[in-house]
Amino acid sequence: MVHDEELIRKDSVYCSYGDTVHYAEPPKIFRGCEGSFLYDSSETPYLDLQMWYSAASFGYRNPRLSEALKKQIDTLPQLACQYLHEEKVLLAEKICLANTERFREKGRIQFNVGGAQAIEDALKLVRNCKGKNLMFAFMGSYHGRTLGASAITSSYRYRRRYGHFSDRAQFVPYPYCFRCYYGKKQPDCDLYCVSQFEKLFETEYHSVIDTKAKESEYAAFFVEPIQATGGYVVPPRSYFKRLKKALDNWGILLVDDEIQMGIYRTGKLWAIENFGVNPDIIAFGKALTNGLNPLSGIWAKEDLINPTVFPPGSTHSTFSSNPLGTSLALEVMAMLEEKDYERKVLESGDYFLALLKDLQRKHREIGDVDGLGLALRVEICGSDGFTPNRELADKMFLEGLKGTLDYKGSKCGLILDIGGYYKNVFTLAPSLHIARGEMEMAVELLDQLISKCKKA
Amino acid sequence: MVHDEELIRKDSVYCSYGDTVHYAEPPKIFRGCEGSFLYDSSETPYLDLQMWYSAASFGYRNPRLSEALKKQIDTLPQLACQYLHEEKVLLAEKICLANTERFREKGRIQFNVGGAQAIEDALKLVRNCKGKNLMFAFMGSYHGRTLGASAITSSYRYRRRYGHFSDRAQFVPYPYCFRCYYGKKQPDCDLYCVSQFEKLFETEYHSVIDTKAKESEYAAFFVEPIQATGGYVVPPRSYFKRLKKALDNWGILLVDDEIQMGIYRTGKLWAIENFGVNPDIIAFGKALTNGLNPLSGIWAKEDLINPTVFPPGSTHSTFSSNPLGTSLALEVMAMLEEKDYERKVLESGDYFLALLKDLQRKHREIGDVDGLGLALRVEICGSDGFTPNRELADKMFLEGLKGTLDYKGSKCGLILDIGGYYKNVFTLAPSLHIARGEMEMAVELLDQLISKCKKA
Amino acid sequence: MVHDEELIRKDSVYCSYGDTVHYAEPPKIFRGCEGSFLYDSSETPYLDLQMWYSAASFGYRNPRLSEALKKQIDTLPQLACQYLHEEKVLLAEKICLANTERFREKGRIQFNVGGAQAIEDALKLVRNCKGKNLMFAFMGSYHGRTLGASAITSSYRYRRRYGHFSDRAQFVPYPYCFRCYYGKKQPDCDLYCVSQFEKLFETEYHSVIDTKAKESEYAAFFVEPIQATGGYVVPPRSYFKRLKKALDNWGILLVDDEIQMGIYRTGKLWAIENFGVNPDIIAFGKALTNGLNPLSGIWAKEDLINPTVFPPGSTHSTFSSNPLGTSLALEVMAMLEEKDYERKVLESGDYFLALLKDLQRKHREIGDVDGLGLALRVEICGSDGFTPNRELADKMFLEGLKGTLDYKGSKCGLILDIGGYYKNVFTLAPSLHIARGEMEMAVELLDQLISKCKKA
Amino acid sequence: MVHDEELIRKDSVYCSYGDTVHYAEPPKIFRGCEGSFLYDSSETPYLDLQMWYSAASFGYRNPRLSEALKKQIDTLPQLACQYLHEEKVLLAEKICLANTERFREKGRIQFNVGGAQAIEDALKLVRNCKGKNLMFAFMGSYHGRTLGASAITSSYRYRRRYGHFSDRAQFVPYPYCFRCYYGKKQPDCDLYCVSQFEKLFETEYHSVIDTKAKESEYAAFFVEPIQATGGYVVPPRSYFKRLKKALDNWGILLVDDEIQMGIYRTGKLWAIENFGVNPDIIAFGKALTNGLNPLSGIWAKEDLINPTVFPPGSTHSTFSSNPLGTSLALEVMAMLEEKDYERKVLESGDYFLALLKDLQRKHREIGDVDGLGLALRVEICGSDGFTPNRELADKMFLEGLKGTLDYKGSKCGLILDIGGYYKNVFTLAPSLHIARGEMEMAVELLDQLISKCKKA
Repeated sequence: MVHDEELIRKDSVYCSYGDTVHYAEPPKIFRGCEGSFLYDSSETPYLDLQMWYSAASFGYRNPRLSEALKKQIDTLPQLACQYLHEEKVLLAEKICLANTERFREKGRIQFNVGGAQAIEDALKLVRNCKGKNLMFAFMGSYHGRTLGASAITSSYRYRRRYGHFSDRAQFVPYPYCFRCYYGKKQPDCDLYCVSQFEKLFETEYHSVIDTKAKESEYAAFFVEPIQATGGYVVPPRSYFKRLKKALDNWGILLVDDEIQMGIYRTGKLWAIENFGVNPDIIAFGKALTNGLNPLSGIWAKEDLINPTVFPPGSTHSTFSSNPLGTSLALEVMAMLEEKDYERKVLESGDYFLALLKDLQRKHREIGDVDGLGLALRVEICGSDGFTPNRELADKMFLEGLKGTLDYKGSKCGLILDIGGYYKNVFTLAPSLHIARGEMEMAVELLDQLISKCKKA
Repeated sequence: MVHDEELIRKDSVYCSYGDTVHYAEPPKIFRGCEGSFLYDSSETPYLDLQMWYSAASFGYRNPRLSEALKKQIDTLPQLACQYLHEEKVLLAEKICLANTERFREKGRIQFNVGGAQAIEDALKLVRNCKGKNLMFAFMGSYHGRTLGASAITSSYRYRRRYGHFSDRAQFVPYPYCFRCYYGKKQPDCDLYCVSQFEKLFETEYHSVIDTKAKESEYAAFFVEPIQATGGYVVPPRSYFKRLKKALDNWGILLVDDEIQMGIYRTGKLWAIENFGVNPDIIAFGKALTNGLNPLSGIWAKEDLINPTVFPPGSTHSTFSSNPLGTSLALEVMAMLEEKDYERKVLESGDYFLALLKDLQRKHREIGDVDGLGLALRVEICGSDGFTPNRELADKMFLEGLKGTLDYKGSKCGLILDIGGYYKNVFTLAPSLHIARGEMEMAVELLDQLISKCKKA
Repeated sequence: MVHDEELIRKDSVYCSYGDTVHYAEPPKIFRGCEGSFLYDSSETPYLDLQMWYSAASFGYRNPRLSEALKKQIDTLPQLACQYLHEEKVLLAEKICLANTERFREKGRIQFNVGGAQAIEDALKLVRNCKGKNLMFAFMGSYHGRTLGASAITSSYRYRRRYGHFSDRAQFVPYPYCFRCYYGKKQPDCDLYCVSQFEKLFETEYHSVIDTKAKESEYAAFFVEPIQATGGYVVPPRSYFKRLKKALDNWGILLVDDEIQMGIYRTGKLWAIENFGVNPDIIAFGKALTNGLNPLSGIWAKEDLINPTVFPPGSTHSTFSSNPLGTSLALEVMAMLEEKDYERKVLESGDYFLALLKDLQRKHREIGDVDGLGLALRVEICGSDGFTPNRELADKMFLEGLKGTLDYKGSKCGLILDIGGYYKNVFTLAPSLHIARGEMEMAVELLDQLISKCKKA
Repeated sequence: MVHDEELIRKDSVYCSYGDTVHYAEPPKIFRGCEGSFLYDSSETPYLDLQMWYSAASFGYRNPRLSEALKKQIDTLPQLACQYLHEEKVLLAEKICLANTERFREKGRIQFNVGGAQAIEDALKLVRNCKGKNLMFAFMGSYHGRTLGASAITSSYRYRRRYGHFSDRAQFVPYPYCFRCYYGKKQPDCDLYCVSQFEKLFETEYHSVIDTKAKESEYAAFFVEPIQATGGYVVPPRSYFKRLKKALDNWGILLVDDEIQMGIYRTGKLWAIENFGVNPDIIAFGKALTNGLNPLSGIWAKEDLINPTVFPPGSTHSTFSSNPLGTSLALEVMAMLEEKDYERKVLESGDYFLALLKDLQRKHREIGDVDGLGLALRVEICGSDGFTPNRELADKMFLEGLKGTLDYKGSKCGLILDIGGYYKNVFTLAPSLHIARGEMEMAVELLDQLISKCKKA
C-alpha cells in the first residue's frame, strides 16, 4: 500500500484535475467499502449519504452482486457486441416488460456505457425521428459531459472552454418551488410556470413555432423528473402532466433522464412514474449495475427505435452491451422483482425525511428539507432560512470528510455531496438498504456538523 | 439456459438493432470463451482472429486478470471519482512514465469510459487550447459514435440520420498505398499525399489559413496511426514525420487515437511509436483492461492539461476512473513491464504474416496482405487481385461463423471481421498470446473458406 | 404600358413569389406616386399610411431629393468603394457628429446596402469583439432575412425551410404591455419582465453565465426600440434603462436596430433616444435615402470599430458606399438639420393619435391605439376589444386596396400594412410630411373600412 | 468642394476602415467619371481597367442609362415590393426568356440587393430543396461577405474574426492550370482535378456520401465559371461538363455565381455558357444596372423556385425589386438585345489579349496573360516568369494611381486591380465599350509602369 501523502503527490503530478471536482483539497483517499460505509487508510468508517451519486444504491460490495459478477468472469466475461449473449437479451426483455406494465407501451432497449452516451443515443433517436437538432431542457439540468450532452446541460460553465455549441438547448425554468423563478407560491400559482411554457406556442412571434406549418423548431424536451445535480428538487405532482400536454400538442418528444433517479431511488423503478406521464424515451444507467460496470442504456417507444427507422449500425460502441455489465444488471433486475423495493424505499424515505424535518426545526439554517423516496434534500441557508449559504455547506462537507466526528464513542466521518443552483444543498442518496440506525446516525452527525460549523 | 432460437426471438422483440451491426442474420450467440476461442451453445470452438476489435488482446478469460478483478471486487469495487483510490493514481503514473520514456515529454492522464468519450475529452482539450472547433481527420477514419466523435469520423453514413453537424472535420486522404487516392505508386511517389496536404497552407485561397494572422482555421489533426475500421492499413514509415512538420508550422495539434492499435497490437505500446513522431494527445481504451471494463482515457502534454489551463471540473463522468477498471489496467501495465511484448508480438506477427503471404500466393483473390505486429490485413478482391470483392468476403465471414469447418478432424468455426473502404478486408487482431499452432490453424481455415466460397 | 392583367400573368410565370408577401391576390399594381399617394393604372389615388415600411418617410418623389439624385447622376454616379468620394465622408461625419451630440460617444460609420447587411455587419463587430456567436433578441423581433439576420429574428417561419441554424438567438419577451407575456398590468408590474431577464444572471444554473469566469454565454442584445414588424409596440419609458443595466453588468453589448424606426419616425433621429440609453451599435437604413437607394449602415463606438480592432478588409461589399446612395443620404441629413423635424413629427403624431383615439371610441373592435411620433398602431380585435381579429384586419386591408372608397366625392384607396404577433395590427408609418387634411382623410377612410368590413 | 486633405482627415476619424480594402494609403479620392475614365480633383484622367469590379461595364455615366434612371425618378421611383410595378415583371420576363433560349429550361427570377444577398437567396433555395447545409465551393472562390456567403468563400481571413462558422463549405481545387494544384500540365492531365473530385464519391470512407442511402452530405456546388477575386482564371473548356456529370450522379445542384462575370463580361450573357453546362441556379448583380443601383437576383429552375416549394414570404427584403433598379436593368437588357455584344466583346477581347501577349514578350515578369472576352489577367512574377511577385504588382498599382504617367504628352493615371491567390495578378475588366485607342493606351501605360517599377 502506497501512503496517502505519496498518492496525493503522484496525483498532483500525473493526473488531470479536469475529470474530478476536487471539492476537498487535497482529495480524500479511500481504501475500502461495505454497505453504507467507506473506509480510509486508518480504517475509519464514513457513513455515505451519497452513494456515488446514486450509482451504488444497493450498498457497497453487495454480496449477491459480487457473486454474480464473479460468476460471469468465469464464463463469458468478454464478447463483441455484434454477437449475442443471453444476459443482454434477457435484460432487455425484463426492462421492456417492466415498462409495458407501467406505460402500456411496446419499446426496445439500446445499451451503451456511461450515462452521457445514453443521452447521446437519445439525442440521435430524436434527431433521426424529428429531423431537428434543437431541444428544450431545464434550467438546473444536468445530462452529462460529452459535447452533445453538455449542449443540453444548463450550466454555461460546462461549455465556456469549448467554443461554440451549435446545438445549445433552450432552457426552461424548473419547478423549484422553494425558489420559484417567477416568485410565485404553491399551490396558488396554478402552475404559472407551465402556463409560461405554453405561451411559447401561442404565436410564431414567441419564437418557437411556425404557425402555418404547425411545426415546432424544437424536437424534444429532456427532463430529469427529480433534478439531481440541480439539488434533488421535487416538482409538484401535477407538473409533468400539464407539461406533457403542451408537448403533445406540438409533437415534441419527452425524453426522461432517469440516470440518477431511476432504479427505485424515488420508490419507483422510474422517477417519472410518480408524475403520471408516459415518456417517449427513457435513459438509464448508474445503479443498474450498482456501480460495478458503466452499463447504461435507453428504452424507446417502438415507433422511434424499431429496426426500420433505426436500422443496424445506426450507432454502437465497443462495450455497449458488455457481458459483465449486462449480467450484473440482470441480477439487479432479479433483486427488484424479488423484494418489494417500492414499499421498502418509501418507508425508509419517510422515516429519514421525518428525522430531517426534526433537525430542521432545531436549525434555522436549514431552509428546506424535502424528498421523494430516498432522494432527499437539505438546503443550507443563512439565519433567515432562505439566503443560500454556500460557505456553511462547504464547511460541513469538509468537516464530515475529516473523519473526526464521534458517534457513540467511535470516530467516524460523514460523506455528503453538495448540489443545487447555489451550491448550498446536501443531496442525499443513501443506500436503498440503509438501516434505521444508520439514518439516526446520519441525522445525529448532521446535527454535530451544522452545530459545529455554524459557530465557527 | 435459454435456447438460441428463443433468444433470437426475444432479441428481435426487445432489442434495438441500432447498436449492433447485424452482419450475420440471425446474429450468432456465444456462451463461453477462453484464450483465442469463443464457444457456442453446442460447445463448438471458434478461433477468434478479431478479439473484440482488439479489446481482448490478452486472451479471453486471462486468469491473471480475472484474479485481479476478483480481488478488487472484494476490496474497493466502487468509489465516486471525486475521491482518490490507489489504483487510479498508480495507473496514471505508469502510463505517464512510459510516455516520458518514449517521447521525453511530461504529461497527465485523464480517464473516462468508452473510447468515444476519450475522443470527446481530446476534442475538449483541443478546443480549450486553440479556441477553435474545426479538425482535420483522415478519409477512412473511425473515432467513435458520440455526436462529437461522429463529426470527425469519415463515413457520412454515421451522420446522415442525425441532421446537421456543425463541427464536421475536413477529411484528408489516408496513405492507403494499395489503393492510392492519387493513383501514385510507392516509393516513387515521394509522399505526394503529404505534398498535397502541405499545399493547403501555401496561400489563404487554399481555404485553411489566414496568411496575415499566421493562423490556421483548423485546431488539430486526429489520426489513427494504423487505420482500424478503415482496414488495418499501414502507412509508409516516413509518412507521419512529414505530416507532423506541416502541422507544427501552423500550430496544429496531433491527436493520436490508439484506442484500437495501442497496447502492443503493433508491437509497441503505442502504434505511433513505429513512425517516430511525438503526439500532443493520445487517446486509449479497449485492451487496457482486456475488455473487462470500458475504462478509457487520454494522455496529454502538460501544457494542454495542467490544472491551470484545465482545472478541476472541466469535464468528468461518473465512472471515469472506476476502481474495477483502473485495477485491471494497472495489472495489464504490470504484465507489459514483466514480459517483452514487443519481441513476442513482432515474432508472432512476422510468422503470421509469412503464412498469410503464402496463402496469398495460392489465391489470386487475395489482393493484398500486410501488417504491423499483430494488426494484419487480408484484402479480398476479384480474380484480378485488385477489384474489391465484398461478396466473397461476406461469404467467407458467414461461412466461418457457421462453426462447420473441420480442423484436424474436429468441427470448428472462424471468427473474422470485415473492414476497409470497400468492406472487403479481413482485419485480423488475434490474441497477442496466440500460439504458432493457432496461427497455422487460422491460415488453414482461411484456405478452406476462400476455396469453398470462391467456388460457390 | 403593359396592361395590369398581362403583368399579373407574366408575374405568375416569371417571378418568384418567395421575395414578396402576396397579401393581396392578385398583387396590386401601381404606376405612379407623389407625396402621400400611390396611383394605379386608372390614376386612382391611394393614401399611403405605410410609406414602404417607413423607407419613403419624406414623401414619394420628394422634389429636393429627386434633384440631388439627378445632380449626382451627372457628376459621379459610380465609384468603387476602395476609392473615396466626398459625399461618403461628409455623410459619415454628419452621422457621427449627430451621435456624439446625443450620446457623448465617439464612433465611426460603416456603410452597406440593405438593412439585413447592416445587421450582418453589426453581428460581425460583436463576434469580433466578444468572440462569441450567441445573441439575445426579442420575441416579435424582425432584423432581416439573410441567414445571419434570420437567426436573430423571432419567427421560426423564417427559418423552417432552411435547415439548422447554429447561431439561433435566445428570444426574450418584449414589453408588449397590451398583451403582457407575464399577464401583468402597467404600471403595477414594476417591470416584472426585466426582473425575469435579470434572473437569468442570478446563478449559472439559469443557463447563461459562468459564475466563476464572470462571463455570459451571450455577446449582445439586438433590440428594436419600437418593435416594427412586431406591431409598432411602444415599451414603457423606463424599460431600456433597466435592461441596459443588466447588460452592462455582464458586458453584453446593446445593438440598436433603427432601420425602420430611425430618421425621425418617432420624433427623434433614433428611436432609442426616447428611452435614455446609449447603444453600442446602431444599424440604420431605409429612410436615410427616402427609398431612392438601398444604402444602409452602422454606427459603432470607437472601441468596437477603430481600424486596430476592425482593420481594412474586415468586410465590404461592392455597393457599400455607392455615390448615389451617399449623396442622397447627405441631402436627407441636410434637410434634417434645416427643419425642426422633432417638433413637426411630434405635433403631427399627437394630432393623428388623437384622431385615432376618437375612432377607437366609435369601434369596440379597435382594441388598442398607441404611438410614438408618427409610428402608430391600431390593433383590430373582436367585439371584446381584446381577442385578436385577423380576419377583420385582412378584410380592411384588402378593401382599402380596391381603390373604391369615397372621400369627399372622389374615388380613392387606402394603403395599410398589417403587423403584430397575431397579424391584427395596422402599423401606420405615414409620410413625415403628412398634412392635417391627409390625417383626417386617413381616419375617415379607416372609419369607412371598419364599418363596412365588420358588418360583412 | 472639400479639399482632398481635409476629406482624408475626416475619413480617418469618422469612417470605418473595415468596409474598404485601403490598398492605397491614403486612399485616392475621385471627383468625376465618364466612359472609361475617372477624374481626380485636379481633373487628371485615369484610364480604368477595372470598372468597379465589372459593375460599370457599360461605361461611367452612360447617357442612355442616366436618362432611363431620371425618367423613373420622375414617375415611380419608390414602391414597396409587396406591390407590383411594370419594370420588375418585364425584367424578370426578359431574363427568363434569355435563359430558356440558352438552357431550354423554365425558371423564375427573385430579386434582392447586393450580390451577397443573391448568394444568400441561392443558399436558401438549396437548403430548402435538399434539406442540407453543406456546400462545395472552390479554393480561390469569392461569393460575398455576409456570414452565409463568407462560409462558402475560400479565404479563412474572411472568417477568422467572426468565431465559428457552422456551415463552412468544403473547398475543392479550382482548375488554375498556370499553377495546377496537383502539379499537372494541360492537356496531358486529362482533367486529373475532376478525377480527384469524382473519387470523393467512390466509397463512403472518402467522407461525403452514404452509399446505402445513395445520398451526398453536400447539397450544392457554388462555382464562379471564371474565378474573379481569385485572379480571372479561365478553366479548360471541358472542365465544367465533367464536373457537372459528377454532380448529377449524386443530385448535387450547380449554383452559378455570375455576379462579376455575367452580363457579357466574357462575351456571353452568362460566363457559364462558354462551358456548355446548364446551371440549376444563377446569381447575378453588378453590371445589371451598370452600377447605378445594387439590384441583384437569382434565376432558378422552376422546380426549385415555383410558388409551391418556395411560397410567398419565403424570404424578402425592402429594396429587393426597387423600381429604380429594375428600370435600369430593363434598359440594360434592352441594350443587350439591340446590339451584338457577343461579337463586340470578343473582338475587343481578342485585340486586347493580343496586345497584352506582345507586352508579355517584352517583360519576363509577366508570367501569364490570359482572358475570355473582356475578362483578362496579367500575372506578375519574378524574372523566372513564375514566382509570384506581389511587390512588383503593388508598386505598379500604386504608381498608376499617382496620376503622373504620360500619354501622348498628357498627364494621366491608370486604375488597376490586384487579385489572385498570391495577390500578384492584374484582373482587367475594362468597359465593354472600350475603344481600340484606349486599349493601346492601356498597354502603353502598363509598359511604362512595369518598366519603371521593376527598375526601382
